[in-house]
Amino acid sequence: MSQEIEFFPASTNVRGAPYPRVSADGRATLRLEAPQAREVCLHLAGGERTRGDGPFLMERNANGVWELMVTPKARGFHYYWFAVDRLVVNDPGSETFFGYGRQCSGIEVPEDEASAAYYQPQDVAHGEVRARWYYAQTTGTWRRALVYTPAGYDDGQERYPALYLQHGGGEDERGWTTQGRMQFIMDNAIAASRARPMLVVMDCGQVLTRRPGPGVPDLAAMEENAQLFGRVMIDDLIPMIDRVYRTVANREHRAMAGLSMGGMETLAVGLPNRDTFAYLGVFSGSPLSAIDRTTAYGGALSDGVAFNAAMRLLWLGTGTAEASSLRRTRAFSATLAEAGIRHAVFYSEGTDHEWLTWRRSLNEFITLLF
Amino acid sequence: MSQEIEFFPASTNVRGAPYPRVSADGRATLRLEAPQAREVCLHLAGGERTRGDGPFLMERNANGVWELMVTPKARGFHYYWFAVDRLVVNDPGSETFFGYGRQCSGIEVPEDEASAAYYQPQDVAHGEVRARWYYAQTTGTWRRALVYTPAGYDDGQERYPALYLQHGGGEDERGWTTQGRMQFIMDNAIAASRARPMLVVMDCGQVLTRRPGPGVPDLAAMEENAQLFGRVMIDDLIPMIDRVYRTVANREHRAMAGLSMGGMETLAVGLPNRDTFAYLGVFSGSPLSAIDRTTAYGGALSDGVAFNAAMRLLWLGTGTAEASSLRRTRAFSATLAEAGIRHAVFYSEGTDHEWLTWRRSLNEFITLLF
Repeated sequence: MSQEIEFFPASTNVRGAPYPRVSADGRATLRLEAPQAREVCLHLAGGERTRGDGPFLMERNANGVWELMVTPKARGFHYYWFAVDRLVVNDPGSETFFGYGRQCSGIEVPEDEASAAYYQPQDVAHGEVRARWYYAQTTGTWRRALVYTPAGYDDGQERYPALYLQHGGGEDERGWTTQGRMQFIMDNAIAASRARPMLVVMDCGQVLTRRPGPGVPDLAAMEENAQLFGRVMIDDLIPMIDRVYRTVANREHRAMAGLSMGGMETLAVGLPNRDTFAYLGVFSGSPLSAIDRTTAYGGALSDGVAFNAAMRLLWLGTGTAEASSLRRTRAFSATLAEAGIRHAVFYSEGTDHEWLTWRRSLNEFITLLF
Repeated sequence: MSQEIEFFPASTNVRGAPYPRVSADGRATLRLEAPQAREVCLHLAGGERTRGDGPFLMERNANGVWELMVTPKARGFHYYWFAVDRLVVNDPGSETFFGYGRQCSGIEVPEDEASAAYYQPQDVAHGEVRARWYYAQTTGTWRRALVYTPAGYDDGQERYPALYLQHGGGEDERGWTTQGRMQFIMDNAIAASRARPMLVVMDCGQVLTRRPGPGVPDLAAMEENAQLFGRVMIDDLIPMIDRVYRTVANREHRAMAGLSMGGMETLAVGLPNRDTFAYLGVFSGSPLSAIDRTTAYGGALSDGVAFNAAMRLLWLGTGTAEASSLRRTRAFSATLAEAGIRHAVFYSEGTDHEWLTWRRSLNEFITLLF
């Protein structure tokens, strides 16, 4: 006797929206009511297990509702949108998530309970995520930083170490809380004594508003942006955080990490500023091409002995299913090894260039800090 | 010699998006690239000064870009979206704002600098908006409250009064910070000593997830929802806030207010719970129809002398350009007067059922609290 697998509304839906629906075995059914449309395609980040990377043509029923059931290649969070006669359209049933430089639909495909436990809210003491506005001299603008404070922060006078945690390209400072579920990962790891209580500071790492054209990444703009964001961090953000919050304001109690573009920013900002950071985490963000280890990052990697004496942790993470990052991580690790630079590499089994890789990376990285 | 009025990207745009554009004289130009579309209409909340309430047909240029310049009836924040061959579509150039039970585009049409100063970030001490997750026994779910803490909260041991502040129908707990700019209104009013330092607690007042059908409001569902949300507030939210934050946990230091549906919730929850709240604010949320003052709200209004002895402030606000709210506010005020109930009425000149009315209402209401 076969058993029906139940479908239920995704946790990423707006309240009351019956679709998209997901199942415990990792399938998702998406729907869009568009009776006038001639063609509707689904664009799903990370693709689909049986039919490749899409876009996937949806099927129209007699009522003008377009539907498709897919099995995403990995569980966890996926950006998606529809192309209705080639026009990019979000799903009114979904919350929106800032990615690709705009608000996108998103769907959480559930893992089994045990695998997901570390990023779900549990019955443990909870921290807060605080929105803090500050004026940055570097840009001449008001900016919003999001600051995770651990449970108990308000109850004593203890001082805390701080992790500066960056989103990826096309995303912003909201990514780690909405897509990444950072606050639950931190709460659970701290409650289990897997990680020390710490602040986590998230700010928008895309400071240049020049919009890249389609096609290949604009490497010069990426570099200019990383340098500019580094100035915001060093001259504005970190001094503000150390003034407003009870931090231990020295390099031994300060870490930086980021995913994808944010990982590259971690290298660009963190390696030349070893007097500011003693811990660096690069999640799917190893360099895009081979580096000259004697000159790259202001020569930070040119003297392995000096580097190892100063840097307490240089940590690389990648999903095994993200070919480019896997290749780049291995190449960067080899370069570091040649330079005599001590570092760690973490492989997230079977996950792609998506948030499941980065939730797992964060969950491992924080256990090694401070 | 005529002077060109400059247009610039709206503050509500995603980073780098050139459109929508707004001008200092209150116009807005909206664009959508949709070469395949046969018809594109603009739906703009609050309508347009010269051509009524819309939807407004947009004009297609030779490149398949649809464009329209409009002059919204009022400045401030407006929800909007496009109907592309009748399909509801957000503007990829806009941030999204939760309203109408889904994520919508939004545009901030600037007021002159002096009029807008109270809701802009200024060079004053800033508070924080904290996301706080908690488990509600009433619903058996994890919920997220947003809590504004004033500047200086972390620096001492002072205890604070608290305002519970509700969004409108179709919105959620994010509305007051994103659409309402509550945090800047509070920062500025507190810095100018126009308001006492206080906490502001925002939670989602739509607890029932049953979705209303189109057409007339489902009054029974609204009432059921208000009662359910009242239980969340009284049994879960307020005890959590009083446990976690340094509040003065008594009725003389607790207020509730809300806009539209949130104003009706304020009456439904606040009037029968006079042992919990001593200040109530109703922004564009007076009762939908005549009430029986001897029986309504558990009989709260039946004894004017007793009511006046207990309630320190019952405050009604409305825009003068929102016909339904204006009529309902006047009718409710007349009923209160007949019952001998002391109350105040505030009129926001020329503003409609939109966020400018509610920003102004908040900015006045908080000066009368605690």
